[in-house]
Amino acid sequence: MNEFDFIAALRKLAHHPAARGLADDCAVLEVGNETLVLTHDALVEGVHYLPSQDLADVAWKLVSANLSDLAAKGAEPVGVLLGAMLGDGDARFLAGLEEVLAEYDVPLLGGDTVAAPEGAARAFGLTAIGRASATPVPSRSGARPGDGVYLCGSVGAAMIGLEDIRGGAGDSSASLAYRRPRPLLAEGRALAPLVSAMMDVSDGLLLDARRMAEASGVTFQIDSDAVPLSAPEERREEALRWGDDYALLFTAEPRSEWPVAIARIGTVGEANWTPLLIDGEAPSPDDALGYRHEG
Amino acid sequence: MNEFDFIAALRKLAHHPAARGLADDCAVLEVGNETLVLTHDALVEGVHYLPSQDLADVAWKLVSANLSDLAAKGAEPVGVLLGAMLGDGDARFLAGLEEVLAEYDVPLLGGDTVAAPEGAARAFGLTAIGRASATPVPSRSGARPGDGVYLCGSVGAAMIGLEDIRGGAGDSSASLAYRRPRPLLAEGRALAPLVSAMMDVSDGLLLDARRMAEASGVTFQIDSDAVPLSAPEERREEALRWGDDYALLFTAEPRSEWPVAIARIGTVGEANWTPLLIDGEAPSPDDALGYRHEG
Repeated sequence: MNEFDFIAALRKLAHHPAARGLADDCAVLEVGNETLVLTHDALVEGVHYLPSQDLADVAWKLVSANLSDLAAKGAEPVGVLLGAMLGDGDARFLAGLEEVLAEYDVPLLGGDTVAAPEGAARAFGLTAIGRASATPVPSRSGARPGDGVYLCGSVGAAMIGLEDIRGGAGDSSASLAYRRPRPLLAEGRALAPLVSAMMDVSDGLLLDARRMAEASGVTFQIDSDAVPLSAPEERREEALRWGDDYALLFTAEPRSEWPVAIARIGTVGEANWTPLLIDGEAPSPDDALGYRHEG
Repeated sequence: MNEFDFIAALRKLAHHPAARGLADDCAVLEVGNETLVLTHDALVEGVHYLPSQDLADVAWKLVSANLSDLAAKGAEPVGVLLGAMLGDGDARFLAGLEEVLAEYDVPLLGGDTVAAPEGAARAFGLTAIGRASATPVPSRSGARPGDGVYLCGSVGAAMIGLEDIRGGAGDSSASLAYRRPRPLLAEGRALAPLVSAMMDVSDGLLLDARRMAEASGVTFQIDSDAVPLSAPEERREEALRWGDDYALLFTAEPRSEWPVAIARIGTVGEANWTPLLIDGEAPSPDDALGYRHEG
């Protein structure tokens, strides 16, 4: 059984409308007169981070990855529950956790700790709970022909940051983009009432754009030169396929004023033989368009 | 840094009242005009279960352990988020997950999957969300002098069940008590409006009774012969120190009628030099009273 089959089987158990068919990064749950947004992401040693990494950065990323999912829903964080395997570097993990929770004013609400068995890869899980600020809560599937395709934030900084780390400059300011990514919470809340679809770019802009187009049953025409870049221009093609930048990709009816800085990077067209056209051409089947996580 | 220090550090980050100081198994969150109960528990291979165990049973236990925490709050399950490391036996994990979610009519709302790194111990995390049926939501800390101490359910069945499994009778009906524990959800909801404190017995009745007495600042006088036993009488002393039975321990003003079957097992007294008297005597300092998890 591969991961695709596993997730397909999980989808059958996700029959509640709040689960959104497991297609949407977050669950959206009506509770009384409010709407909660819930997400769970895990980081595993050797898969999502290297054993040599500072666990303070791992804690930061664990929290900010989940908050970025809330940002894409326009949700305000309410709190998090942590599942942590204990071991070496715990004090650093706690330091990073304290920093990121303080930075975004999010309380720890609960969780579970367990000693890591001898030689085990450490795993950390986090559930983030948010309060929707606008309803309907944006999904991936609402893009409509005629909408513009927009990006809030830029791509490329995390790629450069990781290269710095690998090159021994793990304390460079560029490395911060990779080590301490910033979820665009305020931007997501400002945009949520205006968008037809929204998601955070975690696996690569082009890959996530294709996912959004497929979920919406439309074709995205992306103008690659229009994508805001935080990397040298000659790295543009790579940066469009790189994850971890936490920019917000969204579609909306074009408008003359926006509440936050955004860039128009394309147009939504009717469903076509391909969900994605990059500068007028369909990507090659060999082009992965981004980083395919194992989860 | 040991686990005690780690949790003490986490407690400082849990400043929101919903976190209940991380002292209460669940977070209790006011949302709109409702009260949500949130809990997160993890199971790790080699710590909470053996590599040889059927992953269908592991999935069942992962869900039922979390639902048992909701039961102790009188909460009705709303849904769960799963963090799963994939690997061998995934089809069995899914089968068990489907069974337990169907049994308790709980939908999967979301989560995350990740491929287990080569040779890694598998870890599974679950966040369960419930809706409180009675407020205030019972805590560990509300026991008052003059209350009775009660148990809903019995102890000892899981101990016998594990012995069957270790003895090669892993398919015996007794083994079900260990492999497929049943959270007392209906009982918890019926009792929640009547109790002054409640928790599920997961680490051993006497250990959990001492924790509740300490949290409440009182002394529990336990009559060990009054504890309902699902094991041979000669195993009583052990069964009182065994976990995994998921009985509900609670305190309440004595009453002549109860909505569900319960047994009175003791009395709450004023704070004393010891939080726990068993048949009138304080337990020996060498008596662990139960199973001390690493988390």
